[in-house]
Order: sequence, then C-alpha cells, then structure tokens
Amino acid sequence: MSGPSLVGGVEAGGTKFVCALGTGPGDIRDETRFPTGDPSETLDRVAAFFEASAERHGPPVGVGVASFGPLDLQRGSPTWGWITSTPKPGWRDVDVAGGLARRLGLPVTIDTDVNGAALAEGRWGAARDVAHHVYVTVGTGIGGGGVLNGRPMHGLTHPEMGHLPVRRDPARDAFPGGCPFHGDCLEGLASGPAMEARWGAPPETLPPDHPAWALEAGYLADLVVTLTLVLSPQRIVMGGGLMRHRGLLAAVRGIASERLGGYVRSATLDDGMAGYLVAPGLGERSGVLGALALAQAAADAGI
Amino acid sequence: MSGPSLVGGVEAGGTKFVCALGTGPGDIRDETRFPTGDPSETLDRVAAFFEASAERHGPPVGVGVASFGPLDLQRGSPTWGWITSTPKPGWRDVDVAGGLARRLGLPVTIDTDVNGAALAEGRWGAARDVAHHVYVTVGTGIGGGGVLNGRPMHGLTHPEMGHLPVRRDPARDAFPGGCPFHGDCLEGLASGPAMEARWGAPPETLPPDHPAWALEAGYLADLVVTLTLVLSPQRIVMGGGLMRHRGLLAAVRGIASERLGGYVRSATLDDGMAGYLVAPGLGERSGVLGALALAQAAADAGI
Repeated sequence: MSGPSLVGGVEAGGTKFVCALGTGPGDIRDETRFPTGDPSETLDRVAAFFEASAERHGPPVGVGVASFGPLDLQRGSPTWGWITSTPKPGWRDVDVAGGLARRLGLPVTIDTDVNGAALAEGRWGAARDVAHHVYVTVGTGIGGGGVLNGRPMHGLTHPEMGHLPVRRDPARDAFPGGCPFHGDCLEGLASGPAMEARWGAPPETLPPDHPAWALEAGYLADLVVTLTLVLSPQRIVMGGGLMRHRGLLAAVRGIASERLGGYVRSATLDDGMAGYLVAPGLGERSGVLGALALAQAAADAGI
Repeated sequence: MSGPSLVGGVEAGGTKFVCALGTGPGDIRDETRFPTGDPSETLDRVAAFFEASAERHGPPVGVGVASFGPLDLQRGSPTWGWITSTPKPGWRDVDVAGGLARRLGLPVTIDTDVNGAALAEGRWGAARDVAHHVYVTVGTGIGGGGVLNGRPMHGLTHPEMGHLPVRRDPARDAFPGGCPFHGDCLEGLASGPAMEARWGAPPETLPPDHPAWALEAGYLADLVVTLTLVLSPQRIVMGGGLMRHRGLLAAVRGIASERLGGYVRSATLDDGMAGYLVAPGLGERSGVLGALALAQAAADAGI
C-alpha cells in the first residue's frame, strides 16, 4: 500500500494566500505565502509556485483550495468553483477552481476555508477519532464547516453558521450589531470587529475581568447549543483569534452545558463538555492543511 | 430487477401505534392501529399483527420502527434501539428494537419519527428530487429530522431541533415559555400547548387575524433561518397539526426570507421560498410511511 498522495494546497484568504506541497502536517516539502492581489495576478503566482516546486519535488496528483467565500459549490453548476457575492474588490464572480486548473493542467478541488479546516482537524487534528464534527472559527468573522461521515457538509450552498440568529438582551447589550446583512446575528455581535465597535477597544486589549468576555461567551454558547441540537456532532472544534483569550473556551462550555439543561443525554457531554467542545489541534495551520486535506480527499475518492 | 421489498413499518407514538405491511404508499397490504399501552403488551400486539399479516401476504424482509424518543441510536451501544429518557410512564429505558426483533425473528431497524418522516418524504413525498432535506413537525411538540445523501442524520445522538434557542422579545411576548428543560426554547414558545398556555385557548380556535399567528410565524422563521445557515438543506418540509392553519406556512416563508436578508444566494430561495419551504407530500401518513421507508433503506443497504 502506498502512503498518502503528494498534493498541493492553497489557502485562499482575503488578505493572504498560502501555498504548500506535501502529504500532511509532518511532510510539507515546499511552502510560500504572499498578499492577495488581483485575481489574475494572484492565480499566476499560485501556478508559478506549483510549477517550480513540482520540478524540485515531483508533481502533485491534484490541488485543493480552501477559500474565502461565498463559493458556488453546486456540482453541475456552470459557475461551480467560483467566488460569488464577496464584497472584496475585484474578486466577485471569479472562477478560482477553473482558473487554477487551466493554469496547472491538474485536477483542482475547492471548498470553504472552514470545511477544509474541519476536514484537516478530522484527518490530523482534534477530531481524528470521530466521524461527525464541526469546526468553528471566531475572529474577524465567524464561520463554521462540518464533516459528516468523512465528507464536508454541502447542500443548497454551504453552511454560513456565523450569521445565526442569537439572543441579544437589549438591557444587557445595547450594541445593535454590526452585520450589514442581519445587524445582530452572531457575527454582528461576537466577531472581533463587533467587540471592538461595542467596547471602543480591540478585544485583545480588554482585561480578563472585563464584562465583554462573559457576553462573548454567552453568544458563542448559543452557537454551541444550536449546533448540538441541529447537527448532533460528536465534537465541536472552536478556533480563531478570539478563542486564544484565556478562559473563553471554558466559559463557553459552562454556559452551553447549563443552557442545554441536561436534555441531550450522552456521556460525551458529561464532564462539562471538556471532551466535546475543544481547541483546534492544528492551530493556525488549519487553513493550508485544510487545503491539502481537500486535495487528498479528492485523490482518495478518485475525483 | 425486482421491485421494492415487502417490509413492515411501525409508527411508535406516545398515544398510538400504527403497524403496516407493504412496499410503499401505493401498496399497503395490511394495516392496524391501537392505543399505546405498557411496553410489553404493546410490543406483543405489534408482533401478533405481523405474524397474522405475514400468513396472508407473505413475510416482510424486515421491520422499521419510527419512534418517539429520545432514542439511543449509537451503533455499538449496549442500549442501541432503546427509548431512553422519556417522561412517558413505563417507557423509560425500554428496548424497543431488540424486543421486537426477539418476538419476530426478523431484522428490526429503528430511528426517530422525524428522521423516518424525512426519509419517506424523500422517497415518496415532497422531497423526491433532492438529496439533502429536513422534515419538521409543529404540533404537540416540535421536532425535526434530516436526510443527507439519502441517509438520516445521526451523530452524537439525533437532532433535537425543537429545543433550539430562539429570540423572544419580552416586550412583545411576555409568555416565559413552557419547556421543562429550557423554558423559552422553540418548543416552549411555539408548540400547540405553548400557544394554548399563552392565549388561554386551543390554537385551532384562534381566528386568522389573531396576533398569535404572526408571533408563531416569527418563531418558526427563526428555525428556518437557523436550519438554512447551519445545514444548507435543499428543501425544508414543514408539517404537523399547527401547520394546517391557513396562511401560516406562507407567513413563515415571508419572515424567514426577510431575516436571511439576501445573504444566502441560491435560485432555490428566490420566489419567496415557495419551492424551498414546503408542506409535506404525505400528510399524516408520514409516520407509518417513515417506518416503511426505514425498513426499505435497511434492506437496500443489506443491514
């Protein structure tokens, strides 16, 4: 039996692109990163990296892209693999997957950055021992992806968990929310920019005993409760810049447990959710490793 | 190629059991219903029905049970197929699947009533043309099940969508909610008993212009928004006794579309969700047909 395939991964972010060639976290043979420019120039740089690295390390069997969105991921759609309604200048209606495939002459697969991260956490990180799990990132934005039976979650489009309605008590939180689409949805209330707008200071400067953190934990607990009741995942991995705040993950566990009220019976939820709601195993590498995981999953499936 | 298998179905409800032998909605060869008694007596009656009907119509290849819950559906669990923490007297910790399999000497599969109904709506009802859909029932209780890639949704346990946190504005709705676990969760605010407790009259007696219906539509719209953002289903089928109220489904569509705010781009959501949020195709037959669908899915999978 051969080992895992040599694949390429592209973490396509709104501010930077990271490209890597390898087989997994312990075997990255080449890597580069550069700021996101205009689409054509950026995809040219990606292609140039893979051409040069293939000469040194051999050709990858395919390339995975873990991208910002929203994306069209509907198989058979004429705009499959395109970034669609993004506000990012120049990137609206851009054929990322096709543009790369044409440049590289290789199979290219694409998914959301959070579905990629979920897949990578399942292959190599904090969800290796379960079949159904969710990955959530809480930072500049809030997003989530999931893996069910080893496959990323898709349906009509892809999950947009960051925009969930959550319960804001105006007596406790007068901030009306900052989401241009929904006002006080989860992202509008609990993202990094929302915290900064509410408190007038970047979240990383707020002291541990600042009331901001209890409020933040409450909103994120609504997300955990909702995911548990709708998806019944075996694990929730919660990462992103804001989750590095000491004590926040534990506070979310406590509030979510209390709000579930013992209704969902499972040994996994005992022990205050310590084994259920967890930090990422791959940390900030989940983006590019997610892209590699997408390429490997496609290679394994013979796509 | 042979046609669909002859199977048995058991709709196991808290107040009544319905048993049927057949291959689908157009071919029910025998059927019976009786009030739910104590577990042992009730399972004896189920077994007696299938023994008698097998003599007349031939033996089924297996039996599916679409049951009230909560259920233990974790494969490999020593209590797989049991009803677990139900408040229904006598039915707590009852081995329904095993008890029937021992009585019948046939393979027995079991799932929640709502996962069964979701499967049946996908095989024969309002979701025949999609691969990912959700079925929600709104009545004495609120529950939901889903089908992803043709398979019912399972994970840690099974979805309990009825108990989602929703946004209650105390200035508009002073009713604190009636859920013994969560107070003002969706079921606590929007089930039939919750409506009756809030307004002092059974919902079917409230006139169409009563404010109860706009409030109800708003809570159900939060559910539709949440399901759309978390699961991204291709269709949501919404049934149950309360949904028979004229205009309620259309009102939910309108409020949910407005709250999504155009964020999720899909042609399926256009036209005011008319093709996305729909009434069941099987009506009140979804319970027993769900049980038949579970048995056929198990037979198809060779379980």
